[in-house]
Amino acid sequence: MNKAILIIQCPDQKGIVAEVSRFLYSYEGNILEVDQHVDEEMGRFFMRAAWELDSFSLKKEEIAARFEQEVGKRFKMEFTLHFNFPKPRMAIFVSKLSHCLFDILGRYHAGQLEVDIPLVISNHPDLKTIVEAFGIPFHFIPIHPESKISAEANQLELMKSHKIDFVVLARYMQILSGEFIRHFPNRIINIHHSFLPAFVGAKPYHAAYERGVKIIGATAHYVTEELDAGPIIEQEVARVRHHNTVNELVQIGQDVEKMVLSKAIKYHIDRKVLAFRNKTVIFY
Amino acid sequence: MNKAILIIQCPDQKGIVAEVSRFLYSYEGNILEVDQHVDEEMGRFFMRAAWELDSFSLKKEEIAARFEQEVGKRFKMEFTLHFNFPKPRMAIFVSKLSHCLFDILGRYHAGQLEVDIPLVISNHPDLKTIVEAFGIPFHFIPIHPESKISAEANQLELMKSHKIDFVVLARYMQILSGEFIRHFPNRIINIHHSFLPAFVGAKPYHAAYERGVKIIGATAHYVTEELDAGPIIEQEVARVRHHNTVNELVQIGQDVEKMVLSKAIKYHIDRKVLAFRNKTVIFY
Amino acid sequence: MNKAILIIQCPDQKGIVAEVSRFLYSYEGNILEVDQHVDEEMGRFFMRAAWELDSFSLKKEEIAARFEQEVGKRFKMEFTLHFNFPKPRMAIFVSKLSHCLFDILGRYHAGQLEVDIPLVISNHPDLKTIVEAFGIPFHFIPIHPESKISAEANQLELMKSHKIDFVVLARYMQILSGEFIRHFPNRIINIHHSFLPAFVGAKPYHAAYERGVKIIGATAHYVTEELDAGPIIEQEVARVRHHNTVNELVQIGQDVEKMVLSKAIKYHIDRKVLAFRNKTVIFY
Amino acid sequence: MNKAILIIQCPDQKGIVAEVSRFLYSYEGNILEVDQHVDEEMGRFFMRAAWELDSFSLKKEEIAARFEQEVGKRFKMEFTLHFNFPKPRMAIFVSKLSHCLFDILGRYHAGQLEVDIPLVISNHPDLKTIVEAFGIPFHFIPIHPESKISAEANQLELMKSHKIDFVVLARYMQILSGEFIRHFPNRIINIHHSFLPAFVGAKPYHAAYERGVKIIGATAHYVTEELDAGPIIEQEVARVRHHNTVNELVQIGQDVEKMVLSKAIKYHIDRKVLAFRNKTVIFY
Repeated sequence: MNKAILIIQCPDQKGIVAEVSRFLYSYEGNILEVDQHVDEEMGRFFMRAAWELDSFSLKKEEIAARFEQEVGKRFKMEFTLHFNFPKPRMAIFVSKLSHCLFDILGRYHAGQLEVDIPLVISNHPDLKTIVEAFGIPFHFIPIHPESKISAEANQLELMKSHKIDFVVLARYMQILSGEFIRHFPNRIINIHHSFLPAFVGAKPYHAAYERGVKIIGATAHYVTEELDAGPIIEQEVARVRHHNTVNELVQIGQDVEKMVLSKAIKYHIDRKVLAFRNKTVIFY
Repeated sequence: MNKAILIIQCPDQKGIVAEVSRFLYSYEGNILEVDQHVDEEMGRFFMRAAWELDSFSLKKEEIAARFEQEVGKRFKMEFTLHFNFPKPRMAIFVSKLSHCLFDILGRYHAGQLEVDIPLVISNHPDLKTIVEAFGIPFHFIPIHPESKISAEANQLELMKSHKIDFVVLARYMQILSGEFIRHFPNRIINIHHSFLPAFVGAKPYHAAYERGVKIIGATAHYVTEELDAGPIIEQEVARVRHHNTVNELVQIGQDVEKMVLSKAIKYHIDRKVLAFRNKTVIFY
Repeated sequence: MNKAILIIQCPDQKGIVAEVSRFLYSYEGNILEVDQHVDEEMGRFFMRAAWELDSFSLKKEEIAARFEQEVGKRFKMEFTLHFNFPKPRMAIFVSKLSHCLFDILGRYHAGQLEVDIPLVISNHPDLKTIVEAFGIPFHFIPIHPESKISAEANQLELMKSHKIDFVVLARYMQILSGEFIRHFPNRIINIHHSFLPAFVGAKPYHAAYERGVKIIGATAHYVTEELDAGPIIEQEVARVRHHNTVNELVQIGQDVEKMVLSKAIKYHIDRKVLAFRNKTVIFY
Repeated sequence: MNKAILIIQCPDQKGIVAEVSRFLYSYEGNILEVDQHVDEEMGRFFMRAAWELDSFSLKKEEIAARFEQEVGKRFKMEFTLHFNFPKPRMAIFVSKLSHCLFDILGRYHAGQLEVDIPLVISNHPDLKTIVEAFGIPFHFIPIHPESKISAEANQLELMKSHKIDFVVLARYMQILSGEFIRHFPNRIINIHHSFLPAFVGAKPYHAAYERGVKIIGATAHYVTEELDAGPIIEQEVARVRHHNTVNELVQIGQDVEKMVLSKAIKYHIDRKVLAFRNKTVIFY
């Protein structure tokens, strides 16, 4: 089914739901999903509406302008309009650890992700064969301290030429530059291997082991220039016990990581994530 | 904050959200929460809207009639209108097992449940002292096979004289008659001590033990005349292991039971549960 | 590290732990793990002990006989002795659904499973390319009603020629014959896509949808001749909501299925599962 | 059933399990449970063994000395010996928040905790009536900056006169002095209302709200002189969403707190917790 999705943020005030739904109804829109949230503390309104496109009486190209004119302007809305076709284009960055990558590829292969994956980029060649068996081009771009800038220019060029909409860091072990990040605001999803804000930084499983926690976790978040501090999209945890070695924590944690990252990707593709400041609203 | 809550069901069609939100806006309603759901298979629309009452320009008493006339009639809506004040009035039925009762009383004492509890009814006298320490009248109504009919008449009389809105069976070990149930359609909440539909009927923990399951559960549901078959409101589970005896399953299960029942009560009080046929829509 | 694992069952009586640990100590065994369980109801004792092999003063080949003579006979023990090298040999049977298979292959690729996978057998050719990219031979053995017997003979021949220790049914959509099953008692692991014993049989997600449950699950169990009734190894669940379609239940459920099956495989490989009648003892 | 429980720690070496089980067997001990753990990194061995006391051929009073002589000395063991009768004596400290206290009292009332509760101490009088309805003496000991020292002396005197074995801080909002803590090493259980080490210190739910986490938690730990840094006994979490206010986080969190604290108390009573440095081994 062809559908349109409208994502809205604005200062809270009366009548927004009424006006948005009136707009959609006035052009024969059959609403499929509507969700709204008011952040009382910030006085901010968030809304997501999805409707059938085929029976809608406005042309795809006209919707945004008409909405701005009839509704958006009046409520000072920041809004984006999305369609489920053509599919969004996702790039995956990976290093050597394969668990998150394979989980994404498995879902993609099974038709669970409404996304195109034009390429996988890695700073190691190890995963090339399997990625290509899934029918996806694999780009090996090694990163050395002296070549980091040109490597990133190369990556950005690939993003551009493949019209990439958003980037997934599937345990990519390199830190992206501020410049790269600014090209994709709230459009780079990273998986951090701890239950943030516990164990920020490197070697979180070792830190968890040292502290003797009974539960470990993982966090998918949008990448911002401040490390491990971007808006959290999804988190999940797993129970561990005294007999688990650091190595076992790593393995248990990898299961959590892959599930959390894939869930965050799904929310992002379905346009269910609204970010504001360092928080997210998720309409699932 | 005084608020009104509108609960709607009707055949699905275009324009419902627009019309409901237009209605609320036209009388200065500040929408606090709005949720909708379409059951595609049944072609049925469900909606819940909550708004501030103080700034609303219709009088409390006028809202239902005006809504029926302006919106409800046109869409063939079944709707109910609720206010968070006065609080709904809840009766608790209990036997000897105290875990669910105490959990409810604890939340009530802490001010977590927006409800009045005019009475607790039990077929055993054991819990009287503690119930009364929470400031709630306790009625001991013994049930014997020969006196069952008069006991239930007595119970129904108490329901009526205390203007009870809904009933909670907190591990009440008696089966209510069809007549009693028909007085409270989708307004009697029971806790079943298994993950329904697994282990329907008596002694579910023994059955779970025999089958060697690794997870047990509990189910809160509305009571219908068919045993253990009413619309499910909430379920939760807990992990068990081979070394757990039946007795330990019972204890682990009781923790699940009390949490599930209290959650279901909270959803019901907040008017977040919409039942249709043998299912529920829960807008949490 | 080379290690030996002893798995014991016998009628319960005093002194078993003392005798087993004395035996190991008397040959310089450094115990790594020891777990025991008494099923009071059945009067049955279960034990698992793992120790370092390199410093053990008995030869690998002598251990079983010596243990039988010194300890086993006296307590009427049924015991099996295992070594972590050479690795057990696992065959995977799959149809078209790939999620469980890919999850296993991913773990295998990452070195998380101490197992050899000499072959994958499928009644459909679809997954051949990817299986082979993981370096594992893929056998396409179509199953038609008229050829079922010869196909199974073919499968059994492959099991034999590849010295297969145990079989994993990774959503294999064919029912194995009693004869096949009798070749691998408690050595065929199946994943059933429901929280058994709820929703036995076909189309459990449809049944779960119809019943309106709030939680779905999956069950890994050893295959016995009675369908869906074998000893349960592992179960897990996921929360679902009223807005989830049957299709979404399937997707959510597949995540649970793959995690549960992989966990059960890991327990089996690590010799942590002891089955007796229709139950399991799991020393994790 | 009368049982004895032996809790052992010592440097790791061969033969410990054999010697301990031989000791128990030599005096006709019927082992009910035996668990052991080796912390490879610290080279430390932990063990817990429980056996039937009635058929044991050593007198209760002789066991410890005989064990020290025959086994303990040789392996440089630190060990403690416990009996399930008489029951351990637990004091509860509470302030105004009642959820943890009521959860404990409910379990106590239901006979789930093998413990005596000689008194509840509070710095507020609010919960007196209900505590007394459970048949437990309530001591109101107000705490003011100027009277803190004498109040604590009073508390310690009560601990002594009631022969208190261990103390539970059920959301007690006062910080105990180092002196008090030194009277009860690893015998004061506190519940911290966050998933430690995330959100150490005051107002963790506010901090969680600010950070926009998707999961909150609670941590039961032994109290040490360093705040929120003692050995963790148990942790649990709950999922939260963007629409949850700080107040709702508090309520959701309180459910987690009470379950975690009660679980930790149960482990402690059953002598299943072994603490070493800032970690715990839990044999559940």
